[in-house]
This record gives sequence, structure tokens and C-alpha cells, in this order.
Amino acid sequence: MPHHFTSEELRGWLRLSLEPGLTPAPARQLLAALGLPQHIYQSSTATLTRHLPADLAAQMAGEPSDPLQAAIAQATDWLEQAGHHILTLADPAYPAALLDLHDPPLLLYANGDLDCLGRPALAIVGARNATQSGQETARDFAGTLAAQGWCIVSGLAAGIDQAAHHGALRAGQQGGSTIAIMGTGMDLVYPAAHRALAHQIAGQGLLLSELPLGTRALPHHFPRRNRLVAALSKGVLVVEAARQSGSLITARLAGELGREVFAIPGSIHSPLSRGCHALIRQGAKLVESAQDILDELGGAAPSGLPPCAISPPPAPTNTDNPLPEELRPILERIDFAPLSADQLLRRTGLLATELPAVLAELELAGCIEALPDGRFQRLKP
Amino acid sequence: MPHHFTSEELRGWLRLSLEPGLTPAPARQLLAALGLPQHIYQSSTATLTRHLPADLAAQMAGEPSDPLQAAIAQATDWLEQAGHHILTLADPAYPAALLDLHDPPLLLYANGDLDCLGRPALAIVGARNATQSGQETARDFAGTLAAQGWCIVSGLAAGIDQAAHHGALRAGQQGGSTIAIMGTGMDLVYPAAHRALAHQIAGQGLLLSELPLGTRALPHHFPRRNRLVAALSKGVLVVEAARQSGSLITARLAGELGREVFAIPGSIHSPLSRGCHALIRQGAKLVESAQDILDELGGAAPSGLPPCAISPPPAPTNTDNPLPEELRPILERIDFAPLSADQLLRRTGLLATELPAVLAELELAGCIEALPDGRFQRLKP
Repeated sequence: MPHHFTSEELRGWLRLSLEPGLTPAPARQLLAALGLPQHIYQSSTATLTRHLPADLAAQMAGEPSDPLQAAIAQATDWLEQAGHHILTLADPAYPAALLDLHDPPLLLYANGDLDCLGRPALAIVGARNATQSGQETARDFAGTLAAQGWCIVSGLAAGIDQAAHHGALRAGQQGGSTIAIMGTGMDLVYPAAHRALAHQIAGQGLLLSELPLGTRALPHHFPRRNRLVAALSKGVLVVEAARQSGSLITARLAGELGREVFAIPGSIHSPLSRGCHALIRQGAKLVESAQDILDELGGAAPSGLPPCAISPPPAPTNTDNPLPEELRPILERIDFAPLSADQLLRRTGLLATELPAVLAELELAGCIEALPDGRFQRLKP
Repeated sequence: MPHHFTSEELRGWLRLSLEPGLTPAPARQLLAALGLPQHIYQSSTATLTRHLPADLAAQMAGEPSDPLQAAIAQATDWLEQAGHHILTLADPAYPAALLDLHDPPLLLYANGDLDCLGRPALAIVGARNATQSGQETARDFAGTLAAQGWCIVSGLAAGIDQAAHHGALRAGQQGGSTIAIMGTGMDLVYPAAHRALAHQIAGQGLLLSELPLGTRALPHHFPRRNRLVAALSKGVLVVEAARQSGSLITARLAGELGREVFAIPGSIHSPLSRGCHALIRQGAKLVESAQDILDELGGAAPSGLPPCAISPPPAPTNTDNPLPEELRPILERIDFAPLSADQLLRRTGLLATELPAVLAELELAGCIEALPDGRFQRLKP
């Protein structure tokens, strides 16, 4: 549970984090030298000048400007709403993993279930323009790991991020949870199309941001967001990434912080596998299954979770409908890449009149999947 | 050039390699203790008994049996034919790389151009039931490396082996060459469907076998053959391999011999990528292009080759037909996986009447490939 603020404490922390011209490094120096924010703001200009430029010291020794007061009021109003939290560096609920950063946020805005922060976390990140297959991989890994009690951390972006959050949410009945670290203020959602997803995460997981309310999505916020994704997690899995991409920055930061880096391999002809292959060459662990990650992070296995959290992951196959033996040879001719009905007819040698019933049976048995574009794809064995 | 044998020398080596009951290790001990085979066969039973069981010593001190005489005569007859060679451990042309083995063959049957043995060699191996995409990869890598003066070593098997030999032969005008190490006697070809390929390799490269003429394909010959593939090469590239497969044995032997091991990654859903992924996890180098291999084996770059051998590899794109700029967005919508005409219409938004001309233009520019099954696939950029 978060620390219960006095109004003065809260206003002090908010002002310190919102003070115009004050960057995080001198802010932390002030905390170290002068104590909690309310003490900093009770200090004289002379005292503050020992740590800050004179004009900034004078500004901080005075009353906050009108815009600053408005911003503080906006945050305190925001905090009134159900599920909203503000975690400061002094708060016992502040995630200790972030203290591995040289510049941990002074405070975090949070919306949702703070218990998520107590779980072992794995980040799943990757390309915004991910392939369907990459998104399916992200969903599968996230679902399996979330069902085992891991919290899936990602950045609420399109593509792999979105799929990872969805996979973890889908495993909700097994205790799955997910944290989205936002590159905007908590009152905005980027991309806007992810409003429903953000709402679902707030209800079942946790939204986090270090950015003041009202902060819009600007390119330079995303690398800062990525450092939180990396720091919060015991490992980072990169599912699909181009050779130059934000996901590789997240992976590099994770490596620098001593986190494990995992990457999914793919075709040498797929531009979105290049980044993963580069990571593997640099020492990232090549993974084919969620179990590979569990094996590697075994020492970090979740503990103290409710029994439901260690139930088996949602199986893609429906064991009530086992595959009839005579369909096995047909299944063997179906690719892991999407196939059209025409291709399926050629591959399987079935008649067009036979195909729909066979496909239905294969789908019921969880062996293939009907894609939105009408094609079919074999699911992993 | 091979050593010019006296008839007595040749008969001695052949008898030593064919002597019933004599395995290679004691044969090498005899060579070390008593000198060349003709000296071994001039030794008394008493002398031979110091190194061999009494019955084998007596057999070797006597005249060869009729079947043994027939086998020796068969080999000397075989050697008469154009392009046929026998290389013994005492021969300057015997490939020194094989001496890294604890059990180098006493002699090798060779058919073709012995100059191939003087080139730096790279083995390309993999699954017999390789995918079309895997075979294309093997052909591409073999062609590029052969055109740079490397000799491509493989095992004449179906799938990846066959594709690797073909790729190297296709680069013949750039000086490309290939060595097939056979798991049968030199007078047989396994699989029989590869007779024409073996013939082409004998004409443009080199066939090698340590097995006596007439030796049929038996399962236990293939691991022995694989050790020669590994030993002869500076590195082994595994293109597609199941988790339990002969290719992994070749890779393991290569690693034990201090050769580089390279592996091509692929989809985590493809059973034929499992072996490659396992190798990468064990330390094999993940490669996406032939250049990755050249970068790694740079120190072993070919030297003293004719100028044609360092000409650039055959380019898949035809620079006489550059891609018109307006087709670029259409190309971007075409997958690296095969697509049917229906899928192409959906993806590109073109009319059915427009598609053929566009596809023809893309194919001319070397951007896509028409597959035998009527589908189209994008070629690597």
C-alpha cells in the first residue's frame, strides 16, 4: 500500500517534481542534503543557493507560480479518483528495482493495482509494425508467463507491446497481470486507439508514468519510458525488432542494468528479425518458448502468490476435442505460415467440398487458427 | 598432384586398407612401427605378432586371400579411369586438415579435381527434408562463398546437401567448386537420384570417399562420413536441422576439432529450426548472410586464386532492369513467404488485369521469384 501523505508532504513532492527549471539530478541532491520536500521548501534562499543557481533558489524559496499551483492542484485532484496513486521515492511501495537507475523518477503516477509491483516482472517489447506471427508470439509468451505469476511489463505501443499486454490480460483468471509504462501523462493515452486497452490495464493491472499530467507524446519521452521498462523487469524479451529501433535501446539499457535479455529468432529474410538476431549475436539468449525464459530466470521464480497463479498456462489445444488420427497427415501438410483455401486444397489434396469440415475439426482441436483475412495458419505443436 | 605409386606401393596401401579384421588404429600403429605398407607386408609373422593378434599376424604375413586380391584388383582397375585418384596418408596431396582427426583415413578414393583440396573449405549441411526456403538459403550461401574462392563441402544427401552442391556448381564460372564426401564406395551413389549431381561434381569439383569400392549406404557410415565433412572444413554452416539429427553431430565434431560452427535461425514454430537454435544457444555463430561467415573466417581468406575467383557473387537482381519507383510501394506489400495470385491481389490492391504486367516487371528487376507452384515470393533485398 502506498504511503499516506499529509497534504503538505504531497504538495512538496509534486512541487519538487514539477518545479520549472529543476532537473531530477539536483532535485535528488536537495533531497539528500535537506531531507523531504516540505523541508526543502521551508529552506531559505541562502540555504538553497548552496545547491542551486541563485535564480532557481529564489524561485523555490518563494510561493509557487500560478501555473505551478494549477499543476499541483490538477495532480491532487487526479489522485482523488479511485485507483489513482502517486508513489514517491520515500514511499515503501516505490518499486525498488527503479533504484538501480542513476536517475530514478522522483515520483510515479500510477493507476490500477499496486500489487502488480510486488510480482517478478518480465518486459516484452518489439516493433510497432510487427507481423501477425510476431504479435501471436508476444501474446503466447505473455499469457504463459502471466499465468505463472509473472507481471508482463510493456509500453502500451502498437504491435508487440499491445499484444504482450493483451496476452497477459487474457491470462487474468490465472492471476496474470501487466504493467504499461506510458510515454505520456496519465490523463492521456498514446496511441489514442489504445484507450480501451489502457482502461482494461488500469482495471486488471497497472498503468505507470513518471511524466506530469497533461504531458503529450513527444519522441524524446520514449527512450526515458524505455529505461523504466528495462529497470522494472528481471528480463526483457524482444519479439520482433528492426536493426535500428527503440526495442534495441530498451534491450541495451536492460543489459547495462544487469537484466537478462531474451530475443526471438526468425527468418533471415525478415527485416523485423534483424534486431533480434543482432541482440543474439551480442549475447542475448535465443528463446523458442516461455519455458526457456522460466529456465533462465528460475532463481527469480514468483513466491507468495495465490495458488491460482501457478496453475498451468492456457493451453491452445482443446483436450475435449483431440485430433482424430486420420487428420494427422493432413495437418502435417499445413504450414506455420498463413495459407489460403486454394493453397490448402493444393497442399492437402482434399476436395473443395471436404475442406471446410476438415478445417473446422482442426480448428476445434486447436491445431490451426482462422486468420481475420480468411487464411489459416497452423498453431504451434 | 597425387603421389605416383609404384604398383607394389599401391597394392600395399590397398591391402592395408582392405585387410579383413585390421581396423584403422592398429594399421596406423603398424605404419608407425614398420614403415610403408610394402615393408609391413614384407615382415615376418613374428614381427607382426608384436603388434597384432597371432591369427591376424599370420594372415598378413601370407598371401592375400582370393576375395582380398579381387578387391585390390577392382581398386587398381578403378584407378585407371580418368579423374580417379587414390590418396594415401603418405601422399603430399592428402588433405592435411584430416590429420586433426584421431582416426584419419588410411586412404581416400577421389574422383575429380584434386585442386579443390587446396582451397579453403566451408561445409554446408542440414536436413534431408529441408524446406524450399532452406534449400534456397543453402544455394545462396554456397554460391556466394564459392564465387569468393571457397570450396563448399557437403555430403551429397537430399535437401540442404544437394542445394549446397548445386549452389557451388552454379558459381562455377567464378571459380566455384565443391567437394562431396560420400557415405558409399566411389562406384555407387546414394541416393541413386543424385547420380547426375555426382557426375557433375566429379567434372567440376571432387568426390571423396574413404570407403572401399562396392560399399553400400549403411546407417553407421554416415557419422563416419560426417567427421570427414567437419575435419576438411574451416567451418560448418548448418542451414536447417531437427533437434536430433546428423547435422548436429557434424557440428559437434566440427566444434571438437576447433572449426567454427555457424547456424541459420528461423521461425520458432519450424521444427527444422530447432537444431540450429540449439547450436546457437551452445555458442554457434548466428549468421544472416554469407558475409557474416566471411567476416568470421576472414583470417582464412583464400589466396593464390585466379582473379576470377574474387569477382562478386552472382547478383539476384538484374541491374539492367532497375525497379521503377512507382512499383516500390507494391513490392513492400509482397511477403518473403510465398503468396498466391489471390493473395497478391488482396495485398496490392491491383486489378486482376494489372497484376501480370506488374509481376513481370518485379520479376525482371529481380525483386520477386515465380515459384513452381504458381505462387510468387519476394527475393531478399
